[in-house]
Amino acid sequence: MGRKRLQEPAEGRPTVHTVAARAGVSIASASRVLNGIGGSPETIRKVRAAAAEVGYVPNAIARSLQSQRTGLVALAVEDIGNPVYVEMMRAIEAVVASSGRQLVVHATGGRIDNETALLRRLANRYVDGMIVSPIRVTDDHLAALVDSPVPVVVVGQLAEDAAVDNVRTDSRHGVALAVDHLVATGRRRIGFVNGPLDTVPGTARDAGFRAALARHGVPLDEELIEVGDYFQYVAGRTATERLLARTDPDALVCANDLIAVGALHALLAAGRRVPQDVAVVGMDDTELARMMFPQLSSVSLGSTERGRRAAELLLQRIADPTLPPRREQVPPSLAIRASSGASIPRPAGSPTTHPSSEGVTA
Amino acid sequence: MGRKRLQEPAEGRPTVHTVAARAGVSIASASRVLNGIGGSPETIRKVRAAAAEVGYVPNAIARSLQSQRTGLVALAVEDIGNPVYVEMMRAIEAVVASSGRQLVVHATGGRIDNETALLRRLANRYVDGMIVSPIRVTDDHLAALVDSPVPVVVVGQLAEDAAVDNVRTDSRHGVALAVDHLVATGRRRIGFVNGPLDTVPGTARDAGFRAALARHGVPLDEELIEVGDYFQYVAGRTATERLLARTDPDALVCANDLIAVGALHALLAAGRRVPQDVAVVGMDDTELARMMFPQLSSVSLGSTERGRRAAELLLQRIADPTLPPRREQVPPSLAIRASSGASIPRPAGSPTTHPSSEGVTA
Repeated sequence: MGRKRLQEPAEGRPTVHTVAARAGVSIASASRVLNGIGGSPETIRKVRAAAAEVGYVPNAIARSLQSQRTGLVALAVEDIGNPVYVEMMRAIEAVVASSGRQLVVHATGGRIDNETALLRRLANRYVDGMIVSPIRVTDDHLAALVDSPVPVVVVGQLAEDAAVDNVRTDSRHGVALAVDHLVATGRRRIGFVNGPLDTVPGTARDAGFRAALARHGVPLDEELIEVGDYFQYVAGRTATERLLARTDPDALVCANDLIAVGALHALLAAGRRVPQDVAVVGMDDTELARMMFPQLSSVSLGSTERGRRAAELLLQRIADPTLPPRREQVPPSLAIRASSGASIPRPAGSPTTHPSSEGVTA
Repeated sequence: MGRKRLQEPAEGRPTVHTVAARAGVSIASASRVLNGIGGSPETIRKVRAAAAEVGYVPNAIARSLQSQRTGLVALAVEDIGNPVYVEMMRAIEAVVASSGRQLVVHATGGRIDNETALLRRLANRYVDGMIVSPIRVTDDHLAALVDSPVPVVVVGQLAEDAAVDNVRTDSRHGVALAVDHLVATGRRRIGFVNGPLDTVPGTARDAGFRAALARHGVPLDEELIEVGDYFQYVAGRTATERLLARTDPDALVCANDLIAVGALHALLAAGRRVPQDVAVVGMDDTELARMMFPQLSSVSLGSTERGRRAAELLLQRIADPTLPPRREQVPPSLAIRASSGASIPRPAGSPTTHPSSEGVTA
């Protein structure tokens, strides 16, 4: 069957008329869908089904020339292995695919030169638009964003006056949700394991942590704050080992779930019981948080929702370049799980005590 | 700076001559690199650095027309959230980027119709080639593969006579490595938590498990074999819960790391100590295995190496379509960690015993 359909184009290529007739829609509607310019979900479904049935295969290069569109949308993120970006990528891919386009994924390693090189490269219009989530925003970024010849949507914090479509959350408020929860459950020696401070997320989370403690009148002990080299697992584990070597927290807020998984590992390896001795709260609320034992409480920053909205903003911008710059905000929320479930802190266990399975959610 | 470079093309676009002169290479060499057709690593480095310095931005669409190439390579996998595909994707992206191309990533959900539709869609040449890792291989796949108008490299098992470039490993042998290790460390009630049996990996791993037990003269107890709906975490956890409800293993071999993480969670939640009561061995040896507590032993199937080789085969095929079909095999290996570190099994703990931190690697 695959063989037959593949050969049809050579035998006499089905046209947009063939597809429109089979789908029972107008040629204009079929053409819009087949060119990835949109249509109602129902029309998109009918036309794409009809196109598959008749084996319609447009020539991408010829279509690019005609429409000056590539049918491609790019996503540039620091690390495609970070589950928060995987969840964002899944949401973006679903929206992009439903418009008949493909997603081009770039891993930048968070390197400014990589990110600005990608933005400059947009000048050759190899994609119809790009979604970028930079963990650092430099003047080069902003210049490249403003001058970009194709639409760019930024996921993350930007200067208020940046004339760029932007989807953001409030990670300062996200950190506050974690601190509020830990204070409310009786924790007082609340530590913070952050990522690099020369990043947008790092500075926002640091400010959020300090502001939240102050609001609760909990004195800040700098000994309880540790910074990792990356927003990644090994960095989180080693940063937590440094913190535990000098002080004794009864709770740890972690700047993302990968750092929280590293912190959990360091705590359990040191014989601390989680949550009885030390409560742990991560950030991003990825699948990873639910895979841990005990399951990790985590602050959701709406990565799936931010990805979906960013993709929708980009497709709207591609369809109508005259739209004014738009800014959407996705509010954070806290998922409380076993890692911070115990409400009365007890003295830290000795290095020989064993992690407990108490308080684990079913 | 970004602004200045962005405007250069408008002011007078740097040409391949500009780049070749700056890089100190021939125009032919610069052209090959800029068109993504290759060159020595040193030449690629010099030309791409020079291109960045002078702000060279080829027009992708014009270039596509001229070269009949899109500068894009596609990767189609079941689940971009599975860490084994993330590691494969990272390796592929590195090779593809070094050739000056971008990677287009597709998530198929393992659905045959999605995969064959993607393969059929290659008829419109929207990419220069595709790497696909199907978890099921149907006649439609094979027909589409053989008839594909652009090069396709398959990562995974294929019929011996399939005339397609192929990178594979030997997951049967991989399962045998896990069983050999568990038998050697005194385990006798060795269970197996598999993924769906109507998949290529599922059938190969099931056959490998049964053959390995037979080779050791360990009688097979069907009660110790459980199958999940997917190769994913929740499926692994619920399958292990079903297995534990009816029998009492002293070891579990899991068909991938996501299933192993689910199995570990189910064991610890049931009060089993890992590895003292039940040893756990996963498969794929992803980053996830090293994040767990205790760290998971896992069989590496060389996902990074398979990705790198598949990308190299594809680029060679794109450069020379006349090459005969090639087949490369990456051997499996076993990484032994804390989850199977204890060599003397003890009676399973009661549901109230707690997981232990003994035997954890530093």
